[in-house]
Amino acid sequence: MKISIERATLLRAVAQAQSVVERRNTIPILANVLIEAEGDTVTFRATDLDIEVQDKAPAQVEKAGGTTVSAVTLHEIVRKLPDGALVSLTEEAGTGRLTVAAGRSNFSLATLPRDDFPVMASSEYASNFTAKAAVLRRLFDKSKFAISTEETRYYLNGVYMHVADADGGKVLRCVATDGHRLARIDAPLPDGAGDMPGVIVPRKTVGEMRKLLDDDDMDIAVSVSETKVRFATPEITLTSKVIDGTFPDYTRVIPQGNTRKLEVDASEFAKAVDRVATVSSERSRAVKLQLDEDRLILSVNAPDSGAAEEELAVAYGDEPLEIGFNAKYLLEIASQVDRENAVFMFNSSGDPTLMREGNDTSAVYVVMPMRV
Amino acid sequence: MKISIERATLLRAVAQAQSVVERRNTIPILANVLIEAEGDTVTFRATDLDIEVQDKAPAQVEKAGGTTVSAVTLHEIVRKLPDGALVSLTEEAGTGRLTVAAGRSNFSLATLPRDDFPVMASSEYASNFTAKAAVLRRLFDKSKFAISTEETRYYLNGVYMHVADADGGKVLRCVATDGHRLARIDAPLPDGAGDMPGVIVPRKTVGEMRKLLDDDDMDIAVSVSETKVRFATPEITLTSKVIDGTFPDYTRVIPQGNTRKLEVDASEFAKAVDRVATVSSERSRAVKLQLDEDRLILSVNAPDSGAAEEELAVAYGDEPLEIGFNAKYLLEIASQVDRENAVFMFNSSGDPTLMREGNDTSAVYVVMPMRV
Repeated sequence: MKISIERATLLRAVAQAQSVVERRNTIPILANVLIEAEGDTVTFRATDLDIEVQDKAPAQVEKAGGTTVSAVTLHEIVRKLPDGALVSLTEEAGTGRLTVAAGRSNFSLATLPRDDFPVMASSEYASNFTAKAAVLRRLFDKSKFAISTEETRYYLNGVYMHVADADGGKVLRCVATDGHRLARIDAPLPDGAGDMPGVIVPRKTVGEMRKLLDDDDMDIAVSVSETKVRFATPEITLTSKVIDGTFPDYTRVIPQGNTRKLEVDASEFAKAVDRVATVSSERSRAVKLQLDEDRLILSVNAPDSGAAEEELAVAYGDEPLEIGFNAKYLLEIASQVDRENAVFMFNSSGDPTLMREGNDTSAVYVVMPMRV
Repeated sequence: MKISIERATLLRAVAQAQSVVERRNTIPILANVLIEAEGDTVTFRATDLDIEVQDKAPAQVEKAGGTTVSAVTLHEIVRKLPDGALVSLTEEAGTGRLTVAAGRSNFSLATLPRDDFPVMASSEYASNFTAKAAVLRRLFDKSKFAISTEETRYYLNGVYMHVADADGGKVLRCVATDGHRLARIDAPLPDGAGDMPGVIVPRKTVGEMRKLLDDDDMDIAVSVSETKVRFATPEITLTSKVIDGTFPDYTRVIPQGNTRKLEVDASEFAKAVDRVATVSSERSRAVKLQLDEDRLILSVNAPDSGAAEEELAVAYGDEPLEIGFNAKYLLEIASQVDRENAVFMFNSSGDPTLMREGNDTSAVYVVMPMRV
């Protein structure tokens, strides 16, 4: 194999690869990126056996071929090369070494055979559709904070992407929950997504996929089967196994009968929660909300270190209410609000509370109260 | 005690205090900042029993007095208050609580008695002088990287500040070394510093003192005794014990007879070292320098992962030489060079090498070679 490639192009491809690669591997070749050159294209491929990322980049291919080298080392080298450099990658057959050369720099890296690289089996996908990057970004960005980190509840360790019925008809929906809070985000159903099986997209996949979504108007090709999901731009294809489990029936968790409505400036609210939480000990970060007519008092009482209280002017017309929440959960939910106002719907101090942005029901959050 | 103080003023004072405070304390009051109000000044004081920082700030004092509260909690609260807020601090005698109020926020913090706060005994200082912040910054910034982290060699865990003889007469000199590399930085001797005893300024003190030195033209009052050192701006006074030990005779380590001179662009050199070091395993980060007429080849050979080589055009007119160094040490030393050119003076591949910036002898570095 012998190719020449722009440093910037190579850096992008290798950055994506080294991020998928796991730092600690018992199987040495999983630390490597598979480089394959043919025609005028080089394909870079990396995997952790659950996720595979493949990046196609234009290059001048003098001699076709393929090999694998350490993704982290190659990335470090390319990162440190000067801007605008032209990089050549050469492997003489049988040497077991890849030469990386640019300007007066010369590197010789240990390789492992191309044929030993585990390539993810290709699948039949039940559903193929296209969505704008901005749409997918909103679905996953607004839900991922609620993903559970408890390994025993593995079926909650991801975002449940599925087709659901909403007021206006069918929607593409992402839901995540850890049992304490829940996020449910809807987007208009893309053409061709109607038959999509519901899948739980693992946390790491959500993170890697997010890197494909920076360009708002980019069309992302999404393919879904019972066992796999694939997100692709023209250059990059990310394929991932989905979590083999059943996502719980979240609809029962979303309160329907909450009638006590609080409307509050989301940013002011988040800042005030952050301030009063300062005095609380780290273990029980409980914030008390006391609601009275058009007035909200946030307070924290931590016997050891002190107490804090802050008053906010709000829109609230119902009976007085006292309710407690984990400060971290409140902050995370309030920070999802893009618009000015957050609307909370309460029932009683023991019942789950619903939060949404203004009157928009396409992004709904549920948070369980805490005894205070 | 009852005072009102600008948020920005309070934040600066408390930031300095909480940075001196140790995070894990067996003596609870050491986590606190001592606040004392009198006249139109509030004094904030924090200590870890080795270092004491004291910050005087203007405030409106309604009622004089003093108390202590958690430095970290107070800092967090003040940091989160809105810009431009006026903050009131009130302690009603006997309540054991300090009230912090700003706008509609109200905090009540647990206090510990003012009288229990350990105030560092005042000392007689043998020497008092004034130096520009920029001068002290250069002395300590350029030497501190070489401070040893080995706790058993406690006498190397700081920067040795002392008066020394240089070519042009007496100088104020800072030296640090860990046995592998050494930095020796000189500045003109300030008036009144001639009798200063040599002191080893601990690493943490160097870090805290650095925060006082951002304004180039600020005059810093320096006081030195056999056991203590003090750095003061008009607002902030930092007092620290010095390390109770004897700094080794570093002059014997600085090679005098090195004649083989290499002149190289410092930034190009550092980048090249960084690149070739990428392939080396973390344990033995050895870089080989091969010198021939006006040519330097940097190389690394790491049997497991690969090899790297880079050529640089340099000024070198002596016999060919091969010498190895720890890549990290070379990088750190090269990054001290402010001017374009670094000058290396070699003897043989087994002898310490000297590095300086151009022909300036007021900043000299020594690095021990490694077998390659």
